[in-house]
Amino acid sequence: MQRALSVTRADNFPEWYQAVVREADMAENSAVRGCMVIKPWGYGVWELIQAELDRRIKATGHDNCYFPLFVPLSFIAKEAEHAEGFAKEMAVVTHHRLKLIDGRLQVDPGAELEEPLIVRPTSETIIGDAFQRWIKSYRDLPLLINQWANVVRWEMRTRLFLRTAEFLWQEGHTAHADEADAMAETLRMLEVYRSFAEDVLAMPVITGEKPENERFAGAERTYSIEAMMQDGKALQSGTSHYLGTHFAEAQNIRFQNDKGEMTLCHTTSWGVSTRLIGGGIMTHGDDDGLRLPPTVAPRQIVVVPMLRDKPEDAEVLAYCEALVRDLCRSSAFGGPIRALLDKKPVRSAEKRWDWVRRGAPVIVEIGPRDAAGGQVTYMRRDQLRDGDRVRSQSAPLGEFVGAAPRVLEEIQASLHAEARRRLDENIKTSVQSFEELVDYFGAANEDEDAPSGFRGWLQVPWSRPTGAELDKVDQRLKALKLTVRNAPLDQGPASGTCIFTGAPAVEHVLIARAY
Amino acid sequence: MQRALSVTRADNFPEWYQAVVREADMAENSAVRGCMVIKPWGYGVWELIQAELDRRIKATGHDNCYFPLFVPLSFIAKEAEHAEGFAKEMAVVTHHRLKLIDGRLQVDPGAELEEPLIVRPTSETIIGDAFQRWIKSYRDLPLLINQWANVVRWEMRTRLFLRTAEFLWQEGHTAHADEADAMAETLRMLEVYRSFAEDVLAMPVITGEKPENERFAGAERTYSIEAMMQDGKALQSGTSHYLGTHFAEAQNIRFQNDKGEMTLCHTTSWGVSTRLIGGGIMTHGDDDGLRLPPTVAPRQIVVVPMLRDKPEDAEVLAYCEALVRDLCRSSAFGGPIRALLDKKPVRSAEKRWDWVRRGAPVIVEIGPRDAAGGQVTYMRRDQLRDGDRVRSQSAPLGEFVGAAPRVLEEIQASLHAEARRRLDENIKTSVQSFEELVDYFGAANEDEDAPSGFRGWLQVPWSRPTGAELDKVDQRLKALKLTVRNAPLDQGPASGTCIFTGAPAVEHVLIARAY
Repeated sequence: MQRALSVTRADNFPEWYQAVVREADMAENSAVRGCMVIKPWGYGVWELIQAELDRRIKATGHDNCYFPLFVPLSFIAKEAEHAEGFAKEMAVVTHHRLKLIDGRLQVDPGAELEEPLIVRPTSETIIGDAFQRWIKSYRDLPLLINQWANVVRWEMRTRLFLRTAEFLWQEGHTAHADEADAMAETLRMLEVYRSFAEDVLAMPVITGEKPENERFAGAERTYSIEAMMQDGKALQSGTSHYLGTHFAEAQNIRFQNDKGEMTLCHTTSWGVSTRLIGGGIMTHGDDDGLRLPPTVAPRQIVVVPMLRDKPEDAEVLAYCEALVRDLCRSSAFGGPIRALLDKKPVRSAEKRWDWVRRGAPVIVEIGPRDAAGGQVTYMRRDQLRDGDRVRSQSAPLGEFVGAAPRVLEEIQASLHAEARRRLDENIKTSVQSFEELVDYFGAANEDEDAPSGFRGWLQVPWSRPTGAELDKVDQRLKALKLTVRNAPLDQGPASGTCIFTGAPAVEHVLIARAY
Repeated sequence: MQRALSVTRADNFPEWYQAVVREADMAENSAVRGCMVIKPWGYGVWELIQAELDRRIKATGHDNCYFPLFVPLSFIAKEAEHAEGFAKEMAVVTHHRLKLIDGRLQVDPGAELEEPLIVRPTSETIIGDAFQRWIKSYRDLPLLINQWANVVRWEMRTRLFLRTAEFLWQEGHTAHADEADAMAETLRMLEVYRSFAEDVLAMPVITGEKPENERFAGAERTYSIEAMMQDGKALQSGTSHYLGTHFAEAQNIRFQNDKGEMTLCHTTSWGVSTRLIGGGIMTHGDDDGLRLPPTVAPRQIVVVPMLRDKPEDAEVLAYCEALVRDLCRSSAFGGPIRALLDKKPVRSAEKRWDWVRRGAPVIVEIGPRDAAGGQVTYMRRDQLRDGDRVRSQSAPLGEFVGAAPRVLEEIQASLHAEARRRLDENIKTSVQSFEELVDYFGAANEDEDAPSGFRGWLQVPWSRPTGAELDKVDQRLKALKLTVRNAPLDQGPASGTCIFTGAPAVEHVLIARAY
């Protein structure tokens, strides 16, 4: 069967991912190691993610601010665990001038900064410095701030959207009078991420708490949403941290409580990034390319006129223009439908496949016969194939326009249902020993990318080991390229014994390969 | 007379500016030299600027992308003039790791980058690198790209919003088949900036071309919009550059034309930044603080309930809630009215003055008598005073809600008219010699910040000197702290002789003190 991509998911999942990103014209590598260029179609998806998530972040009472790109080295050093966890690979600014020396542009040795500046890998410390000034009394709490920004972590192995040296994200930072209020915030934002992933990205996720060794550097508790990609691997898609009073202590973030006593704040932070786009690609893409949930598709319906350099072209174009105008006047998901007439001077078959690879939810093709008969011929990207053949449908124009909002909602629902089924069917709960775990993941380990390599997740009994005992578990898992993803919230009562320690289980955790 | 700020414009304009920014809670300096923290009220203004300008940039056919924060040093060096003009003060990343050495977190000397990376001061070169890959044939042109991003220029003397080391902006970058198309784009975007400044910021500007010595580094022609601040100084508020083939040559941006020949592209770039916020403050602020044009006011109507810890408070609150609900359901400027009920536990008089200083266009105060009588008592921020007294008005609730969109439009128009009058009345065209110019600006020069220091702009005959001759003019002006702002577009035919060179004038230019 002829496919729109040269590599299939079954053939080689990582190569398939790269092909989708490239053929859908989402992003590319730049001349700067590990930094990507996000192209219009990819950035359009990000703008839609931003707009809707921003709405939800504001609806939960947060204000947007903007804080400096640079963090003084001494700030990073302040919170010990944070420094240890983050002070690894980051971009360090040491000079503030270039100079022509011997006719060559060079770093001016005379312009060294007194204190090196770190390009923010995250902003707890620089925002904490502002909080320390802003917060005086309990009346200032809770302080609920969000920032949309670029951050840099000098990653060694990068992959477009999934792990890049620079990426775009939002980071929420909040301060509270006590643990209960801060924990409620931490879980509230985790729920915002869960519902956003499910409702908007059509990407089902499991919410849960990370084990101690996977916590954010400096956090008291870290929660995540984990999504299952089509190769069975987990993608951590968002995190929410209760930071206790660690950062407040390091940065002196205190308030006068209603008894007049100076008290440490409890803080939180939470973020999602352009990684979500990678998650969407690996959740919904198929062997013909990207499939975008209509909510985040920059163009939801694309109309391709089939022109032949003949007089009837004018009639076809006029018909298409009226169709797009009507569609743009209709609403779906609470906003106007994003429809486009693709007039590029390219053969229509080429345009069709281009939009298939880009994942436009509905692709309309209009020829002279459609225009003359008042018909619309279209493809649904979620139902592109009927066996080997491409499936297209026809409807009278008025009917098509009237049904368009419902069709887009159906596509959204069908992509979500397909991903939901994959997640639900591939979390195994029957494994009760480490040997069984090795058996389950073993084969995949030998040839990770082979089709037989698909392995879902295991949900296993867990005694919540800590310290050295947890390190040992971690090492045994690492040898199998596995990690503990999280301990799902709202799980039933624990039973049985921990498959790692043999101690009585207190909860269940998810074990998976991960990005 | 009691004012809401401790310093007036006439007393000390720079201090007044700082007081407005502080008291309106717009932004503050951070722990990082020259980098600001933009606080919720300031960032809210920026979000509104962004949303509306982004709409206009997209409506003129541009797509948003995102390019790397870092530019390799060798890229900056490529375009000679660009390198010379920009390769001065910028943030240079030289290392990619921190390390604990002797128990102290330090830059790891073993992690030096092979090639230093510059934190983008502007993105011509890194975007040019992508254009060089993307453009193959005339069918790919024009290529119309925009980016919203942070940039860094290591400025020595910084002032919140007006000149900061890091600032937020948009930068458009386009490539065209020939000069005519690129010049049309350059002027189209200048017009987008002009109409945006006037219609949205209510800030009248003069569009014109910069003299040679004020061009963007590497540009063939640079155009600007210049606004007049209340101290008479000019603020360059946006620029649009025709770059010729300079960057295309340096970066090999070529296309195959319709005859099959490889040809250099003509490129443009254009940008506006968070500086616009500073311009809005200095255009509209008064001695009681900020006055925001309703189009960019995060809250257009603020309702302050006058509560007294008495049983009738509940009735007042319910009345206010209904009022805000009704307002939010009404539309102004094509969107829902942004109304807020301010329930902060603070005395209502304090809240009133807080919103006056923040420049909310309409401030409503509701007491038990208003609630009982179905009345609304309100102040218009553009008509705050009647002599010494604060002017408030009353209207029945239904009438107030019905008139609210018109009132907001009136405020927008009145702020614009006031600024327009100031600009029109303070451009003098009668000066015909350098001596007269010295006379005009001389007094102001001695005591720049005194009230008598207000001087507007001169529009003088100009022979368009270049090279060494222009340098001499520039030096004479610099000695008076003056600059040529631009040669206004659409000016009448030139007459007389250049007041600097004595040669016949070919046009007129604006001379002013500037930020």
